[in-house]
Amino acid sequence: MTTIAIVGLGVVGGSFAKAIKENQLTDYRVLAIDKDEATISKALEEGVIQRGETENQSILQEADIVIIALYPQAMRAFIKKHGSQFKAGAIVTDTAGVKGALIENMKDDIPKQVDFIFGHPMAGRESSGYAYATGTIFKGANYLITPIETNKSQNIETLIHLFKALGFKRVTVINPDKHDEMIGFTSQLCHAIAVALINSDDPHRDTVRFIGDSYRDLTRIAKINQSLWTELFMENKSALLDAMTNFEAQFTQIKNAIEKDNQKELEALFTESTARRIKLEDSDLKGK
Amino acid sequence: MTTIAIVGLGVVGGSFAKAIKENQLTDYRVLAIDKDEATISKALEEGVIQRGETENQSILQEADIVIIALYPQAMRAFIKKHGSQFKAGAIVTDTAGVKGALIENMKDDIPKQVDFIFGHPMAGRESSGYAYATGTIFKGANYLITPIETNKSQNIETLIHLFKALGFKRVTVINPDKHDEMIGFTSQLCHAIAVALINSDDPHRDTVRFIGDSYRDLTRIAKINQSLWTELFMENKSALLDAMTNFEAQFTQIKNAIEKDNQKELEALFTESTARRIKLEDSDLKGK
Repeated sequence: MTTIAIVGLGVVGGSFAKAIKENQLTDYRVLAIDKDEATISKALEEGVIQRGETENQSILQEADIVIIALYPQAMRAFIKKHGSQFKAGAIVTDTAGVKGALIENMKDDIPKQVDFIFGHPMAGRESSGYAYATGTIFKGANYLITPIETNKSQNIETLIHLFKALGFKRVTVINPDKHDEMIGFTSQLCHAIAVALINSDDPHRDTVRFIGDSYRDLTRIAKINQSLWTELFMENKSALLDAMTNFEAQFTQIKNAIEKDNQKELEALFTESTARRIKLEDSDLKGK
Repeated sequence: MTTIAIVGLGVVGGSFAKAIKENQLTDYRVLAIDKDEATISKALEEGVIQRGETENQSILQEADIVIIALYPQAMRAFIKKHGSQFKAGAIVTDTAGVKGALIENMKDDIPKQVDFIFGHPMAGRESSGYAYATGTIFKGANYLITPIETNKSQNIETLIHLFKALGFKRVTVINPDKHDEMIGFTSQLCHAIAVALINSDDPHRDTVRFIGDSYRDLTRIAKINQSLWTELFMENKSALLDAMTNFEAQFTQIKNAIEKDNQKELEALFTESTARRIKLEDSDLKGK
């Protein structure tokens, strides 16, 4: 029996807890630390966790695996405060959406007695909180693990095994800077676009009468947790700015083609984007 | 019994035919003109149409309502060629995604014996062809009608009644220029963004391992019919360029805030976008 502690039963941490139950991973005992007592009670009631504490009393001392599902800054503070309480030899992992700067900043705070393996589950919700947590958001999703020198490969394998059992389709081991470059593009740039799109509307227009699924889909993530995403943007400033610049170049190319009535170029850009999307769909479905 | 002729059994025209069957609108008899004989046979087999012709023989002469689901340029050519064959007093409507320039260009070609009411169902698919047609794409969707001076209000009411029976939630009657302004924003700008986003990727990266639902959603419409959308962009050049410029201004504002580490401004932009998206969701669900 492996004991897993989840720190923070929000939409991500709560989904881990629920996914373990939903996937009937009976080899794991799930404990949780969450400052909100009502959340702990709810999770206990639902049989999603076996024990909970609003502040660590004994859970960290017992846990073989600790999943810290807090915002980056809160996670750092948690580690500083509770570092000495982790069990010797425990595997600790985080869920933060940025890695390079975070790892750099945290290096000296990582408790010596644990193996801290940084990770990033690429699944989330626009809404936050335990109520929105569900194991199904992990089905078919990507997981990124960004090891540091001290990580033991056997412990990385243990996490990969767990994440796949939770429904994740691809678990990729990658260095933190490459992670941030990719996430700046696939995640943060998308959020910047969605925010800019909906904010560029004239609020006096009755836009809802003129929308189709394109606008619905492209603005979904404009509903965004402002403190979390400000942290994420700031922690990944340089990679995000690069991705934004690349996007602007492509956007300008489309705009210029329209301005110059260059239909051939427009068609070429659409043909390219279509080929890329089809390739993405194929490899996404294949689970390459 | 009202006879409806559908011209073009592609993803849009085919969805009209299928929606009539799926919604059991037994007051309507559905005939279809499509140049592809296999498509006609398929639709007959499925009981989706009652008769079909690859070139008009007698269908236009019988139809009380004609829905022309062709690309804008093909639609104009069809009207020019077959104008005299429409039944006197018939209601004819199109499904083109642009209106202002199209109506201006077609004014002299509209057959005198019919009431041509321009319309735009805001529902589509990334894939084209009858095989992808389904009545369910109309459920909850918006319909825009852009009347011209000669349209009879009774005929507009007839179409509104039909469209609502097919599952459309809101049918809005609006002038063509306002239509194009709104569509330049809600539809064409979104397509330009999706194309620019996926084309800004470095094709040598294994991007599929780093994507979440944000990237999946924002690039869905990057799979785009290049000839149709080049037509649509060109026909709505000025409104689309305005929408693109407004978007760029918002995007630049986010970029500047990141560059200047202006966290307060970022949070304010995210708070604004969140409020707008919540408002949109509320009114979309309410069916305002």
